[in-house]
Amino acid sequence: MDRSALDLTQDAARLTAQLVDFPSPSGSEKELADAVESALRALPHLTVDRHGNNVVARTNLGRAERIILAGHIDTVPIADNVPSRLDDDGILWGCGTTDMKSGVAVQLRIAQTVTEPNRDLTFVFYDNEEVAAHLNGLGHVADAHPDWLEGDFAILLEGTEGLVEGGCQGTLRVILKTKGERAHSARAWMGHNAIHAAAPILAKLAAYAPRRPVVDGLEFHEGLNAVRIEGGVATNVIPDACAVTVNFRYAPDRTMAEAEQFVRDFFADCAIEEFVVDDHTGGARPGLTHPAAAAFLAAVGGEPRPKFGWTDVSRFSALGVPAVNYGPGNPIYAHKVDERVDTAIVLETEKRLAAWLTS
Amino acid sequence: MDRSALDLTQDAARLTAQLVDFPSPSGSEKELADAVESALRALPHLTVDRHGNNVVARTNLGRAERIILAGHIDTVPIADNVPSRLDDDGILWGCGTTDMKSGVAVQLRIAQTVTEPNRDLTFVFYDNEEVAAHLNGLGHVADAHPDWLEGDFAILLEGTEGLVEGGCQGTLRVILKTKGERAHSARAWMGHNAIHAAAPILAKLAAYAPRRPVVDGLEFHEGLNAVRIEGGVATNVIPDACAVTVNFRYAPDRTMAEAEQFVRDFFADCAIEEFVVDDHTGGARPGLTHPAAAAFLAAVGGEPRPKFGWTDVSRFSALGVPAVNYGPGNPIYAHKVDERVDTAIVLETEKRLAAWLTS
Repeated sequence: MDRSALDLTQDAARLTAQLVDFPSPSGSEKELADAVESALRALPHLTVDRHGNNVVARTNLGRAERIILAGHIDTVPIADNVPSRLDDDGILWGCGTTDMKSGVAVQLRIAQTVTEPNRDLTFVFYDNEEVAAHLNGLGHVADAHPDWLEGDFAILLEGTEGLVEGGCQGTLRVILKTKGERAHSARAWMGHNAIHAAAPILAKLAAYAPRRPVVDGLEFHEGLNAVRIEGGVATNVIPDACAVTVNFRYAPDRTMAEAEQFVRDFFADCAIEEFVVDDHTGGARPGLTHPAAAAFLAAVGGEPRPKFGWTDVSRFSALGVPAVNYGPGNPIYAHKVDERVDTAIVLETEKRLAAWLTS
Repeated sequence: MDRSALDLTQDAARLTAQLVDFPSPSGSEKELADAVESALRALPHLTVDRHGNNVVARTNLGRAERIILAGHIDTVPIADNVPSRLDDDGILWGCGTTDMKSGVAVQLRIAQTVTEPNRDLTFVFYDNEEVAAHLNGLGHVADAHPDWLEGDFAILLEGTEGLVEGGCQGTLRVILKTKGERAHSARAWMGHNAIHAAAPILAKLAAYAPRRPVVDGLEFHEGLNAVRIEGGVATNVIPDACAVTVNFRYAPDRTMAEAEQFVRDFFADCAIEEFVVDDHTGGARPGLTHPAAAAFLAAVGGEPRPKFGWTDVSRFSALGVPAVNYGPGNPIYAHKVDERVDTAIVLETEKRLAAWLTS
């Protein structure tokens, strides 16, 4: 790992590599936040604030509009895929290349190079996006300093392969618990098997057909999946408990309450002993009809797409700031051992954003 | 805990309490084996041998028949149920009361009191019965010193509530693994969910109807149960692996090969990626028609029953020694937090065995 000072004079592709080689899995972002803060404080056209490991920098030029460029600095756990490696085709491999240090590199490059933007700029770098919603740094800033997040339009640089993605799906995590009664497995009929009692839950999940609704012109794609299952006491004991953790990713035409009700109804006949809502964050409608969003879209070009993954666009949406995703990463490779980013798209994203903010 | 010397002059009920208060979960039997060995070496009518934490004591009177009295000295893990507690109804509560320190107490009392038995006696005390078959102390003695286990008839003092139980069921443990492909749970359709792939396994288990065959006049009762299930990578990742551990308890009219084939056939259409045989020990037919068994049965009385749980009767059976289960414990309470034994049955078992061996 390389924890030297960030060099914002190198291009966004090289800066991405430096950021990837500076490990920052969720919960361990402090050193990277320090480095980001130091690099930004060296730029005289910005004012810099910090809350925990979240860093916010702003221009104060009195422009008619203020644009927010936001990105998280944490990654999922490293899977033997750091340091980064650039191959002959210009593909940069490593943890966080796509999700989302390439986006953070573009933010830092705009901060470095666009010293007199045509719109005021707010740069937000935050921690703990890859873990439970209540830990999310953007949420903490929104609670403690909502004025830092005021703006007319927000661009979240989560990976979209350089296309504009509108809205985001909501994500609900529930734990479905079944109950049984222990007995020696030699006399199974004296007990009741809680793992067998989970059979209807898995059968319903296996038979689930995802809805693909069109919302504000964009087609979303829902998903309902078991992400964990646990049960068992000992190899000769009929288990008295089993827990299935289910993640529901839902289109932004459902409210949070509607999403939870859907899941409750879906498993209603499964004899669930306990239904625990473990984590829940709502989605955001695309909002591409907002004037600021439309202007951005016209400037950077391309057909907008829906965003399947939950992103913090939803948090800006809740603050009343229209927001889109627009970043160089390719979400297909997020959270994978073979995570990678095309450096040509990293450079192209930097170029288009800079052009829009200086034209 | 009380690790003082064993007092074999107290009655079998009090001795059971002393043994329960001397903790010996599987893997931690050494101190109890030491105490048993010391107590037996103090008895001049016995010769004593030891192999690991297994103790074997014998009379050498040149009698026409040799009877083996066997019991394991280990217990399942203690569940805040030691020391023992005797209630006003004569019920002794605590870990190992039923399985099977009450049986061990009866063995030790026969060793102490029946100094001139009408049949030669072999007492076997062994370790690691409650864990994987390859650790079983009786198996280790059978491998290293088969001559120590020679005899005409064996009585295993596993809990039967003072009735004679013939034969035992076999037990096979397999791990059924399903395979998937990881993906971010926001784009579940890019992966394949290994937990959902386990749905047919649980559905078959939930629908399983046990066979209850009559073997040598006794009705057995089979069982097929998931005893553990594990799957999941992270709460936002489609899991690529899931494992269901299944325990098949089968009647002794099936061979080991037939039992394994039954399980393979049962799950044949479940798209199992890997089928692992984790542990397997065969059953034993009742064998109550053998003359030595019949004589014992006539002496102690009562209707014989089938033994559902796997016991080491099967190991004696494999050595060519007919064997039955006959012990004071109640198998319903084995491995339970509220494990207990009726001390009246402990005393009655001691009395009947002593009468048969001295009449």
